[in-house]
Amino acid sequence: MKKLLCGVDLGGTKLAVGLVNHEGHLLDKIVTYDHTKKKEEGVLKIVADQIKTLLKNNHLNESVLEGIGVGVAGHINYHKGMVITTSNFEGFKNYPFRDRLQACFSVPVVMDNDANAQTYGTFMFGAAKGYDNMIFMTLSTGIGIGIIIDKKLHRGHTGTAGELGHTIVNADSPMQCTCGNYGCLMALASGMALPAVYEKTVKNGIRSMYEDEEGFDYGMVDGKFLNEGVENGDPASVAVVREIARYTGIGLYNVFQIFNPPLILLGGGLLELGESYFNEIKRIFYSLVREMLYDPIDIKISHLGPDSGLLGAAALTLERP
Amino acid sequence: MKKLLCGVDLGGTKLAVGLVNHEGHLLDKIVTYDHTKKKEEGVLKIVADQIKTLLKNNHLNESVLEGIGVGVAGHINYHKGMVITTSNFEGFKNYPFRDRLQACFSVPVVMDNDANAQTYGTFMFGAAKGYDNMIFMTLSTGIGIGIIIDKKLHRGHTGTAGELGHTIVNADSPMQCTCGNYGCLMALASGMALPAVYEKTVKNGIRSMYEDEEGFDYGMVDGKFLNEGVENGDPASVAVVREIARYTGIGLYNVFQIFNPPLILLGGGLLELGESYFNEIKRIFYSLVREMLYDPIDIKISHLGPDSGLLGAAALTLERP
Repeated sequence: MKKLLCGVDLGGTKLAVGLVNHEGHLLDKIVTYDHTKKKEEGVLKIVADQIKTLLKNNHLNESVLEGIGVGVAGHINYHKGMVITTSNFEGFKNYPFRDRLQACFSVPVVMDNDANAQTYGTFMFGAAKGYDNMIFMTLSTGIGIGIIIDKKLHRGHTGTAGELGHTIVNADSPMQCTCGNYGCLMALASGMALPAVYEKTVKNGIRSMYEDEEGFDYGMVDGKFLNEGVENGDPASVAVVREIARYTGIGLYNVFQIFNPPLILLGGGLLELGESYFNEIKRIFYSLVREMLYDPIDIKISHLGPDSGLLGAAALTLERP
Repeated sequence: MKKLLCGVDLGGTKLAVGLVNHEGHLLDKIVTYDHTKKKEEGVLKIVADQIKTLLKNNHLNESVLEGIGVGVAGHINYHKGMVITTSNFEGFKNYPFRDRLQACFSVPVVMDNDANAQTYGTFMFGAAKGYDNMIFMTLSTGIGIGIIIDKKLHRGHTGTAGELGHTIVNADSPMQCTCGNYGCLMALASGMALPAVYEKTVKNGIRSMYEDEEGFDYGMVDGKFLNEGVENGDPASVAVVREIARYTGIGLYNVFQIFNPPLILLGGGLLELGESYFNEIKRIFYSLVREMLYDPIDIKISHLGPDSGLLGAAALTLERP
């Protein structure tokens, strides 16, 4: 029997642990939500326990595993196997999560950030299969890219390559990012930026149907809020979707100029803003790229589905140096 | 006897053809300036003739060569060996320069843009020797990067990767690039942008010692002009150097966030603006990167010397797939 892959998707709200085969099919999974209030050692224990439970449920020994791949929503030092920092859990400052988890198992444990994991998932099992080079762009709470060059993930010196969200695309913008800088893509187009972008839009004179409602707070503005706003004809919501799509299109264009890839896949929760958002991103991209595009480029939504984080984490176990 | 490398540096004003050994030492060269008024076939003939003359002068047969490497100041389709376009000579629209030159020689001919050639030169013979990953940034009439990933040049799908100059860093800027877009790095910080940046600076109220001089024209503003201006205490010149250094520092920061490289080398004529320019670029970089830098990064000027274009072109002959 061919070995199986174990994927761990360690997110800000959800912990998913799954068994995946070499073809990228999810065979079984366990999803829990009780890790978020724990500190490092507590999270570690839950992850290790869930992996063991999953194996037990399937009457399997650990030796059936090719390895365990962990995708973490946070800043990762891949080479050292450390979570540098994450805004999603308590603690986790330079925490050697990989080695601590490795101590609980005899099969190899690998760990990376969720963007790289998802990138590798699309490369092994999804729409990027067969490409030597491609870029995966996550549009979510944050914004980042995963970089496949010559069939390998490019992680950089520390392992923090692909921080597209922190690149500056509007140097004179007053919009501040959580990193402290102004005019980063993250401050202009990410899920995290939505309250501030909505507020700025309203202050610039575009009408909001909601701002006078009792209990309204700009902090409530998220993807779901905007979707409802657009559906109800809220002018500010429509303007915000167009604005974040504009900056995302600029980010996509910058990625094109730097990497000249044949394929850019988009993933992440913001895509639930729908066709008008995705189409506006592409419209901006093509309006900038014009005659500088000499060969066609595919810009597509990655359809790895709701388990893309798990599949990506599992795919990491198949990476060869 | 170990074979030699032939390098051809085909620039906008200068054509240099040289013999280089495997250690990166220039053994002999011929420099001419009469190709600039010629069209495609005329340029081709001069290049082929100069290579043959250089061999003859050294009593060598063509078979002594490992290959011929050509670095061209222009947009290159590396895979097809075509000059897509160049603002430096007449004609040269989708001209298959590599294959036409190959027809004149039996040793392999390779061709790439001058930024990639210089990058590979620093990687084989210069400050990037021994690095697996690095970025070379040209600050000149235009701005571009050469990308070394896993000891190889990353050229992208068409071969136009590394066009950092066309990435947008100030989306709301009124400064227009030759590509038609606004707020590209090229429009804000390149040699090409100097007249427009100087004019904008003066219009914004910063005094120029020169604007009232007879015969003054903003088109005169280049690196040499700014150097003199700074030396003579011209407030506008000082402000322009600071301004272009600011945007270059932002570009450098964006490169860091995307590639997380251990080394960024800077080259190109704008570096003759001196220490204050280079130091301001670094100051901006570190003011943006702050605690996001987990491992040290080397930011250095490439000191491959005045023949760096030749050495780089010659280095391309040593590239292996």
